[in-house]
Amino acid sequence: MAGSEVELLDFWASLFGMRVRIALAEKGVQYDYKEENLTNKSQLLLEMNPVHKKIPVLIHYGKPICESNIIVQYIDEVWQNKYPPLLPSDPYLKAQARFWADFVDKIYDAGRRILNTKGEEMEKAKTEFIDGLKVLEGQLGEKPYLTGESFGYADIAMVPLYCRFYALEMIGKMNIEKEYPKLIAWVKRCMERESVSKSLPDPHKVYEFLLERQKKIR
Amino acid sequence: MAGSEVELLDFWASLFGMRVRIALAEKGVQYDYKEENLTNKSQLLLEMNPVHKKIPVLIHYGKPICESNIIVQYIDEVWQNKYPPLLPSDPYLKAQARFWADFVDKIYDAGRRILNTKGEEMEKAKTEFIDGLKVLEGQLGEKPYLTGESFGYADIAMVPLYCRFYALEMIGKMNIEKEYPKLIAWVKRCMERESVSKSLPDPHKVYEFLLERQKKIR
Repeated sequence: MAGSEVELLDFWASLFGMRVRIALAEKGVQYDYKEENLTNKSQLLLEMNPVHKKIPVLIHYGKPICESNIIVQYIDEVWQNKYPPLLPSDPYLKAQARFWADFVDKIYDAGRRILNTKGEEMEKAKTEFIDGLKVLEGQLGEKPYLTGESFGYADIAMVPLYCRFYALEMIGKMNIEKEYPKLIAWVKRCMERESVSKSLPDPHKVYEFLLERQKKIR
Repeated sequence: MAGSEVELLDFWASLFGMRVRIALAEKGVQYDYKEENLTNKSQLLLEMNPVHKKIPVLIHYGKPICESNIIVQYIDEVWQNKYPPLLPSDPYLKAQARFWADFVDKIYDAGRRILNTKGEEMEKAKTEFIDGLKVLEGQLGEKPYLTGESFGYADIAMVPLYCRFYALEMIGKMNIEKEYPKLIAWVKRCMERESVSKSLPDPHKVYEFLLERQKKIR
């Protein structure tokens, strides 16, 4: 079990993994990145996340932390050196950040169904996805980040989806770039941070990967 | 908007609402309980939770907090007077509590589908539900509570489901009481707390309510 102080079991195209990579980069935490083969999972992954058997898993001094949003909160609580924190200290503002991070999971789920289903089911997912983006566009308003003046927890939850926008536009026949100007301006603002730009893969590479996967699933 | 310092918009049979009621009772917080008619939601609910339009909503000094697990965390952070806290302060133990509370939501979802679907879909939900209970039975082991020695966040997330066990046994033709002795002993331990027993409605009343609702949904 020994090894590095911090290890991350991950998969390059995982949106959930990207959340953790961004949080670790924001905090300047050094770690061992271990790419998993999701069709042949490592013994380590099965041992570290026996309940869900899913990446990402953060292993800190041999102890596993699972589920992306939970890992991001853990990182924020353990590495408190960097100011501002990812989550605000005020309970009400913290609840707001958690609310929007949870909301984002619903958009992720709709996005996943756009890619993995067909016909009526896909159309239903598209409606949910678009409704979700509209809500986020409204929530952004004139704010630079999803919950206010600084980049944080809710932004980390949402921004990985950007690397699937191209695939969603192509496969779902949507025009995200033109319809949601505030969201796109927000994405660009986030991408100016090295923590984000270095954690997200190339959208075209993601599109090719998803096309391949789609052939097996749909 | 004035009124009481703390208000709760809720519905008596809501498992999510019960989580909030238990947390408020654990902390000894006085509040105005406002029962919602879910087929004709109040203007206040629509204003306080415009995104999801769902109960429970905790209104604290006029400001809304939504989503049950987020509300429970908020309550724990705002009313810190009672020891032990609902969530431990150690980041790793906190992550564990959050992991199990999230896991419970998957059991809830399977339970909901047992009640609201038929045939193959219902059988799939039953398998998921049973698998979930088995995992919880294993997680409990010899511990008195889901994440250790004291009653807390994960227990509050799970225990409301107890008031649907009878309905799930009747409708899903399952035998929860006999199959999961550790889980049932844990339920009984939780029910010894007034915060829990006073927050959960009578299982037979819940069964009748769910039967009525089923006629409209299925």
